[in-house]
Amino acid sequence: MHVIVVYDTAAERNPRILRTCRKYLHHVQRSVFEGQLTEAQLRRFQMAVEDLLDLSYDQVLVYTFPPGTTPHRHEWGATKPTPTTIL
Amino acid sequence: MHVIVVYDTAAERNPRILRTCRKYLHHVQRSVFEGQLTEAQLRRFQMAVEDLLDLSYDQVLVYTFPPGTTPHRHEWGATKPTPTTIL
Repeated sequence: MHVIVVYDTAAERNPRILRTCRKYLHHVQRSVFEGQLTEAQLRRFQMAVEDLLDLSYDQVLVYTFPPGTTPHRHEWGATKPTPTTIL
Repeated sequence: MHVIVVYDTAAERNPRILRTCRKYLHHVQRSVFEGQLTEAQLRRFQMAVEDLLDLSYDQVLVYTFPPGTTPHRHEWGATKPTPTTIL
């Protein structure tokens, strides 16, 4: 399924969150990741991310879509190079 | 149509971007907004946002979905109060 992830975590935890997101998804903006995951991959990703979070502060938003549904992405403003496309 | 907006703008422009996003959408995370817009509202919103951007640095990602398609939003980590729900 298609997945969009946006994280809002304290600066000291950002590098590890970033690394974990990159293992599973494409990096599309500073704190935004996107890609296709199976249910099993999503569960593994969730466990890996939740291990890193401080539950009193950090938040990760995850949008999932029914199979076959892909959002249209528009980029307004600067066109930045995609940091990585690892999957 | 359902719209998700994530902005990555320089700190000095954030307050005005934030104010503009709040006029059109619900604030769901620090730099993430969501809501329902018509095509006409989306165009007005885009013009208002692009007026504020420095095209050499700022970027706004906008995801749109076909009518009737709404993504499922999961929140991992801290449950923060939604800053505003103005529309």
